[in-house]
Amino acid sequence: MTEKKQIRVTVWNEYLDEQKAPVVSAVYPEGLHKAIADFLNQGSEISARTSIITDPEQGLTEDILANTDVLIWWGHCHHDDVQDHLAKRVVEHVQRGMGIVFLHSAHLSKPFKNLLGTSGCLGWREAGEKTRIWTASPNHPVAQGIPSQFLIEQEEMYSEPFGVPEPETTVFISWFEGGNVFRSGLAYQRDYGKIFYFQPGHEIYPTFFHPTVQKIIVNAVKWVNPVVRIKAHDCPCMEEALEKIGG
Amino acid sequence: MTEKKQIRVTVWNEYLDEQKAPVVSAVYPEGLHKAIADFLNQGSEISARTSIITDPEQGLTEDILANTDVLIWWGHCHHDDVQDHLAKRVVEHVQRGMGIVFLHSAHLSKPFKNLLGTSGCLGWREAGEKTRIWTASPNHPVAQGIPSQFLIEQEEMYSEPFGVPEPETTVFISWFEGGNVFRSGLAYQRDYGKIFYFQPGHEIYPTFFHPTVQKIIVNAVKWVNPVVRIKAHDCPCMEEALEKIGG
Amino acid sequence: MTEKKQIRVTVWNEYLDEQKAPVVSAVYPEGLHKAIADFLNQGSEISARTSIITDPEQGLTEDILANTDVLIWWGHCHHDDVQDHLAKRVVEHVQRGMGIVFLHSAHLSKPFKNLLGTSGCLGWREAGEKTRIWTASPNHPVAQGIPSQFLIEQEEMYSEPFGVPEPETTVFISWFEGGNVFRSGLAYQRDYGKIFYFQPGHEIYPTFFHPTVQKIIVNAVKWVNPVVRIKAHDCPCMEEALEKIGG
Amino acid sequence: MTEKKQIRVTVWNEYLDEQKAPVVSAVYPEGLHKAIADFLNQGSEISARTSIITDPEQGLTEDILANTDVLIWWGHCHHDDVQDHLAKRVVEHVQRGMGIVFLHSAHLSKPFKNLLGTSGCLGWREAGEKTRIWTASPNHPVAQGIPSQFLIEQEEMYSEPFGVPEPETTVFISWFEGGNVFRSGLAYQRDYGKIFYFQPGHEIYPTFFHPTVQKIIVNAVKWVNPVVRIKAHDCPCMEEALEKIGG
Repeated sequence: MTEKKQIRVTVWNEYLDEQKAPVVSAVYPEGLHKAIADFLNQGSEISARTSIITDPEQGLTEDILANTDVLIWWGHCHHDDVQDHLAKRVVEHVQRGMGIVFLHSAHLSKPFKNLLGTSGCLGWREAGEKTRIWTASPNHPVAQGIPSQFLIEQEEMYSEPFGVPEPETTVFISWFEGGNVFRSGLAYQRDYGKIFYFQPGHEIYPTFFHPTVQKIIVNAVKWVNPVVRIKAHDCPCMEEALEKIGG
Repeated sequence: MTEKKQIRVTVWNEYLDEQKAPVVSAVYPEGLHKAIADFLNQGSEISARTSIITDPEQGLTEDILANTDVLIWWGHCHHDDVQDHLAKRVVEHVQRGMGIVFLHSAHLSKPFKNLLGTSGCLGWREAGEKTRIWTASPNHPVAQGIPSQFLIEQEEMYSEPFGVPEPETTVFISWFEGGNVFRSGLAYQRDYGKIFYFQPGHEIYPTFFHPTVQKIIVNAVKWVNPVVRIKAHDCPCMEEALEKIGG
Repeated sequence: MTEKKQIRVTVWNEYLDEQKAPVVSAVYPEGLHKAIADFLNQGSEISARTSIITDPEQGLTEDILANTDVLIWWGHCHHDDVQDHLAKRVVEHVQRGMGIVFLHSAHLSKPFKNLLGTSGCLGWREAGEKTRIWTASPNHPVAQGIPSQFLIEQEEMYSEPFGVPEPETTVFISWFEGGNVFRSGLAYQRDYGKIFYFQPGHEIYPTFFHPTVQKIIVNAVKWVNPVVRIKAHDCPCMEEALEKIGG
Repeated sequence: MTEKKQIRVTVWNEYLDEQKAPVVSAVYPEGLHKAIADFLNQGSEISARTSIITDPEQGLTEDILANTDVLIWWGHCHHDDVQDHLAKRVVEHVQRGMGIVFLHSAHLSKPFKNLLGTSGCLGWREAGEKTRIWTASPNHPVAQGIPSQFLIEQEEMYSEPFGVPEPETTVFISWFEGGNVFRSGLAYQRDYGKIFYFQPGHEIYPTFFHPTVQKIIVNAVKWVNPVVRIKAHDCPCMEEALEKIGG
C-alpha cells in the first residue's frame, strides 16, 4: 500500500513584539509559530515548518508558498508592514488552491481582508475573561471529535457584530463571560482555496497548548488541504464554439 | 398620492394550555397572539388579526391564508395536533410567496420543520435567566433601528447546536447567563416565500411587551412581506423550444 | 493496515411503469436501479443493493435505512404513492446523517420536497435534445475528475426557474439545445445529512451508462457518505447551567 | 407628504479605447457611461452622473464617493491602470454601505476582485452570438418585472467555470448559442455594502439600449442602494464588560 502524502504546513507569524514582551515569551518562549508547528508535527499526517516577517521576502517567497499545502497565519500589530505584493501572492496561491487558516487577530491581516472582501471589524476587550466555544455545526469536518462546548479559562474577547460575509458554514460560536458572543469558527471558499478562521489565540494566554484548540487546528488543516491546486488562473479564450453559431 | 397598502398579518397561536395556566394568563390574559396583534396594530402599516387551533380548520382555512400577507406562528405543546394537510397548506402558501415569522418554540412546528427540512433540535433550559441578543448583521432589514445588543431579564434558554441549515443571513445571536449561545434571528427563503425565525418569547415572561422585541417583529413582518406571490406552482411543460433542436 | 470500510448504498426506484414500457426496458432491461447499482459495484469502495416500491414497506424498512450509508432515489410517476410515514422515515434518517442522492425527476419526490422545503417546480420538455453539463465549481468533491463540460446526446430538458433554495454549492449547470439552462448539480446539508441533486437520467435514454455521469454519481456517493451519524435527535434539556445564574 | 430621496448614482467608465474605436463610438457616441446614465435619469427615482478614468483622481475622489449612493462600474482594458489606493477607497466605501453594480468585464476590476476575494476568472469568446438570460430567482428584487427569459441578439460569450464565491443569490443564468452557460446575475453583501454583478454589456453591441437590460440595471441600483451607511469602521474597544468578570 502506498504511503499517504503528508500535508505540508507553513506557520507564519510576525514574531516581532512578542520576542520583547516578557508576558508573551513566558508563555511561548520560541514564539507562537513554533508552539503551533510543534503540536502539528506530533502526528504523522502533517509536516509543519515556520516562517516569520523578518525572513527573506517576509517569509513568503514563491518557493515557500508553492511548497505549502496549508498556510497558517498569526499576526497582530504589524499587519500593515506586510508588503502589498506579498499579501497578493498569498491571496493568489489561495485562489489557486492553497489552504489557509487564519488565527485570532489575523482577521485584520491583508490576506484575510482581501480574500473575504471585508473590513474585518469587530468589538474587543482584553480582560482575561472566560470563553466557552460552542459547536454550531457538529457535522462539519473541523468539528470532528470536538465536544458540543469547551472552556478556555482566559482569552481576549472578540464581539459581534463581526463584519464578515455570511460564511459557507458557521462551525463555532463563542460565549464570553463579560456578556458577548462571537462567530469564532468560520468556513469559506474562494476559487480553488479553502479558508478557515478561528478566534482563540491571544499571545499572552496558553491557548495553543489547549488540547481541544490543537485538535480544531489539526482538523482545520485537514479540511483546507487542497482538493485541487492549479498552476495559474488563465481565463481561457474559447475561440472554438461547441455549437454552431448563426446557423 | 395613493395610500400604501397595509400588510395583512395573521397571528396564529395554539392557545390551549396557556388559558389554564395562571402563570401564563397573568402575563398574557388574552393570549400571546392577542398581545402580538396589539402591538402590530399600533402603527398604520400593519393590520393584524388572530387565529387559534380551536378555530374551524384549526384557524388555517384557505380563505384566511389567501388573505394573509404574513403569518406569525407561536406554538409549543401541540405541534403534533396540527393536522398534516393544514401544515402542508401553510407550507405551500409560503412557497407561493406568503411570508412567515416563527417565534420561539415554533422551531418544532410542522411548517418550520417542513420548510427548513430540519429536525429543529436544540438544547434548552427553563431557568428564567438573563439573555443578551446581539446583532450579527446590522445591515439586514430586520436589524434596522436595533442596537448592537439588548437585554431581556428573563427568558427560556435555547442552545447550540441548533440543527438548522446555514441561513441566508444570521441576523441575531444570543448570549445566555448560564453559559450558552444561540443563533436567535435567522433569515431564509423557500421558493417565493421569506421566512424569519426569532428565539425569544417563552409564554411565562413578558417578552412580547419588550419594545425592542416588538420592533424586531415589526421589522420581520416588513421583510417577509411578499415581493411576488403566485397563484399556483404549475411546473410548466415548455413544449415549444426557443431554439431549433436537431438542426 | 486496516481495510477501509465500504460505503453501503441502496438504490431506490419505483420500477412500476418502466417494466411495462418497451421504450424503457429496451434501455434498462432490469430497471434503472439495477443499472445504477451495477456501475457502483464495479469498484471496491462501494457496495450497492436495490430496493423498489413494491417491496415490503415500499423498500424503506427501518432495517434497510439503518444499514444504508447513502440512499439513491429515482422516482417519477408515483411520487404520491410513497406513504407519508415512509417518506418521513427517509427524511429523519437523512437528518441523522444518512447521505442521499436525488436523480432527475426525484425533484418532486416527498423526501426531496420535505428536506429542501421547496415546491421542486421547474420547466421541462421531452424532445430528446442535446445537453451540455458545465462544471461551475471545479473544486467541489463531486466535480473531481469531471471535465469543464461534457455532452449527453439526448436528454429530457429541465429549465430554470428551478424553485430550490440557494444551494451550499452550485456544482453543475446545464445547457440545452432548445435554449434553456438549469442548475443540474446542487449540494445541500440538513442537520447531519448531506444531499446531492443531479439532473440527467430520463428513463428512455442510456444516460446511466455514460461514463462521466457514472463518475459524478460515484463522486456524489462519496461526498454524501456520512461524516457523523447519530442514533436519535433528542433535543436535550440542559438542566445544569455551566455558569451561575442570578449571581 | 415628504418627497422620497433620489438615489444618487455615479456611472464610472474607463472611456479610453472606446473613444478611438469607431466600432464602439458608432454604438455609444458619448461613451457607455453616458448611455447608462441617460436611461437611469429617465425616471424620477434616480439621479445619475458620470465619472471617467481621466478625471482628477481617476474620477474617484473622496467627495464623489461620499456623495454616491450607488456606483456602477464598467471597465475592460485598463483595470490595472486604476491606482491601488483609489480601488481601496472604493472597496472601503462599499464596506461602509455604498452600493456597487459591476457590469460585464468589470469582473476583472480591482474593486470586484478585492470585494469578492476572487480571481474573477472565466472563459470567453467574441463571436457576436445569441444569448438568452434566464431568471433563476424570480422573487429577488432585481428580477421584478423581468420575464423568465429574454434574448440578446449579439453579445460576447462568458462561460463557466466562473471563479466567484457562491453568491447570496444566483439571480440570472445565461445560455449562449455556442454551447456555454454562465451565472450572469449575482448578488453579494460585504459588511454594510450590497454588490450586484451583471454580465451583458460588451462595448460593441447596443446592449445598454435593450429595455430589459435597462430595467435590470435600474432594479439592481434600487437593490444595492444602502439600507445603512456608516462613517467609518472603528472596531470598538469594549472596555466596560456588560456582565461581571471573574465573579
